[in-house]
Amino acid sequence: MISIEDINLEKEIVHYIDWLSSFGKNGNGGITRLLYTDEWKEAQDGLKNLMEELGFDTYYDKVGNLFGRLKGSHYIDETILTGSHIDTVVNGGKLDGQLGIIGGIIALKYLKDNFGQPLRNIEVVSMAEEEGSRFPFAFWGSKNIIGGATKEMVENLKDANGLSFVEEMYRLGFDFNDDDYKGREDLKAFVELHIEQGGVLEIEKKSIGVVHHIVGQRRFTIKVKGEANHAGTTPMGYRKDALYGSSKMIRSIIDKAVEYGDPLVATVGRLEVKPNTVNVVPGEVVFSLDIRHICKETIIEFTNEVEKIINYISSKMGLEIEIEKWMDCDPIAMDEELVNSIKNKCEKEGLNYKLMHSGAGHDSQIFAKVIPTAMIFVPSHKGISHSPEEFTAPKDLVEGVKALIEILKDLAY
Amino acid sequence: MISIEDINLEKEIVHYIDWLSSFGKNGNGGITRLLYTDEWKEAQDGLKNLMEELGFDTYYDKVGNLFGRLKGSHYIDETILTGSHIDTVVNGGKLDGQLGIIGGIIALKYLKDNFGQPLRNIEVVSMAEEEGSRFPFAFWGSKNIIGGATKEMVENLKDANGLSFVEEMYRLGFDFNDDDYKGREDLKAFVELHIEQGGVLEIEKKSIGVVHHIVGQRRFTIKVKGEANHAGTTPMGYRKDALYGSSKMIRSIIDKAVEYGDPLVATVGRLEVKPNTVNVVPGEVVFSLDIRHICKETIIEFTNEVEKIINYISSKMGLEIEIEKWMDCDPIAMDEELVNSIKNKCEKEGLNYKLMHSGAGHDSQIFAKVIPTAMIFVPSHKGISHSPEEFTAPKDLVEGVKALIEILKDLAY
Repeated sequence: MISIEDINLEKEIVHYIDWLSSFGKNGNGGITRLLYTDEWKEAQDGLKNLMEELGFDTYYDKVGNLFGRLKGSHYIDETILTGSHIDTVVNGGKLDGQLGIIGGIIALKYLKDNFGQPLRNIEVVSMAEEEGSRFPFAFWGSKNIIGGATKEMVENLKDANGLSFVEEMYRLGFDFNDDDYKGREDLKAFVELHIEQGGVLEIEKKSIGVVHHIVGQRRFTIKVKGEANHAGTTPMGYRKDALYGSSKMIRSIIDKAVEYGDPLVATVGRLEVKPNTVNVVPGEVVFSLDIRHICKETIIEFTNEVEKIINYISSKMGLEIEIEKWMDCDPIAMDEELVNSIKNKCEKEGLNYKLMHSGAGHDSQIFAKVIPTAMIFVPSHKGISHSPEEFTAPKDLVEGVKALIEILKDLAY
Repeated sequence: MISIEDINLEKEIVHYIDWLSSFGKNGNGGITRLLYTDEWKEAQDGLKNLMEELGFDTYYDKVGNLFGRLKGSHYIDETILTGSHIDTVVNGGKLDGQLGIIGGIIALKYLKDNFGQPLRNIEVVSMAEEEGSRFPFAFWGSKNIIGGATKEMVENLKDANGLSFVEEMYRLGFDFNDDDYKGREDLKAFVELHIEQGGVLEIEKKSIGVVHHIVGQRRFTIKVKGEANHAGTTPMGYRKDALYGSSKMIRSIIDKAVEYGDPLVATVGRLEVKPNTVNVVPGEVVFSLDIRHICKETIIEFTNEVEKIINYISSKMGLEIEIEKWMDCDPIAMDEELVNSIKNKCEKEGLNYKLMHSGAGHDSQIFAKVIPTAMIFVPSHKGISHSPEEFTAPKDLVEGVKALIEILKDLAY
């Protein structure tokens, strides 16, 4: 059993997170630190200095992922990796991404100070990019580490100001991996500490979530076409009201999702009405549908239910529909053995944990395709994320880092 | 019984409507002729010339309503009025408003040519404004005729370009009625020929609608507040989804309207979602509700039903609501005797009519408060109005003008 001074750990976490938050800080307390911007590079260089001060070997890979390394004494071709992403959304909070990097650094420092050199290499990574906030491409950092990204995928991308992905990357001295790069072969496990970005842990009064699956997602755009008509002169029986039809569809779809129960979620987040005028019967409605579950078969089954609902209502009301599926991302399981190890550590150390799935996407879903991967969540106050309001109680941050230390110790020593 | 040459009538109607449509014509065939613009004044002056060529006495009132008059031989203090409004919506069609003016001119010409001087004065009016399309004020023309408009109501109004109502009015040589003006006392009846602006007559294969009521309207803005949450990490049971709630409300409100049946109509035409993002559970929805019926008590009763529905759903789902009523306009009956006279004339002349209500507002609702008033509708193809696509079959235009001639003959000779 590791003896950890909670009070010192808490001070260190809060201190380093505040320090890292100064890179790209906005006037309102939020952080905007997009891939390959100056503030992004300053944050990476700042982290590099910090890691070196703490005695880690450091290096950038070709695309700008930053690594800090404790060299192993015995299995020198085997590396245990932790960390998260350094980029933020526009006006993001202090914890999304940053916590996983700072938590990793503190864990390595603690392990080094208390247990010396590990048997295997341990590395903490500050990944270049995960959010897709500057360019329309997400998971650039993790995909490069596993050899799952190529120049071709991004070479035509531009940001909102028309600046090119490639030129911005070159400007900071980075480059693409070779096209035949197969990814790192020394990596034996990846463990990511992250905020939950949902309200479940807080509501259930748990300090740690041990993630067993990351959900798959399907996203659709559904267009419902009726007939725009005068709101006063068109009797109810002569209408083809696209919003009335859409309301029936949305109600039935969400009812069905509630009936399916956890962990299925279905969300209609976006809806546009045409012509969107008080005194005109809506002629067209376009709405989005986001479906998530940890089991691919359930997603398929639920999608079929949705299509049945939409077809039934539209044909009954004489409406035309178009359903476009524009995202289809399979669920992925975390490594069962690793999940059990974390769970056992939590039990042994008396940490207040819950086995759960992740409803949001993370770098871990990229690693999980190729190496044993697991995630440790800490609570998000009111479920808020991607906002300057992101907050996790310091005692929960401590529990999260403790769990990370325990599993890294287990894997690398 | 009047003998009318259909073919000549048809030619005249089509000719004059095409001619009037040249004032304010857009590139795409639509018409934009807003109050107190140059094209508006050119149209009025053009009509004045036409009326004089046809032998009518003409005059403008102070605000710019144009009148063409056949002087009565006997009851010189009694005037029978017909006509409609000269202003259009932005990119309007050829028939809304214009038909009532041209129909009136042709009717007066026909009566004068065939029956000479009437006993009572007959006037056709080209009213200054009805649509409220340039300044946020509707029925400026008819309200001034009955003494129901004052300078105070419009003196601070500006159009979308910041031009002032008052200055634009003065620019064209018009002025306000005195504050104590009580309206015209010689008017004994008003009959307005207008397109239906709905699809009922076409669907039911009728050429004429004899209007018995103009509906009352209530309009509401309904705000539904829930909680914006992450679409992936918020289980269905922890959501306060403002769009799910709004969909239930809209569905139930429209279901209830269908259940009430004609002539009740209820429309949710406008809906806005916040934040309106694919992967965020909607935190707020604002939607409009427009309720119309010919009976005030039914409007009140239906409004109560709507409030019950909204309160029930919001309280069950933990949503907050705000209901704002921003329009409350009572229904108004047309003059029973006048309606019966028109109906009898239609029967006698073998005109293909239907007794119906108007679901849209018209100048007639202003006149109906003070003098016997009635409306004659002709069909709108596909119910389309306020669009360059406005169309009524020429044979139906002829029937409408015939009915107008018959009733004016009845009232003035």
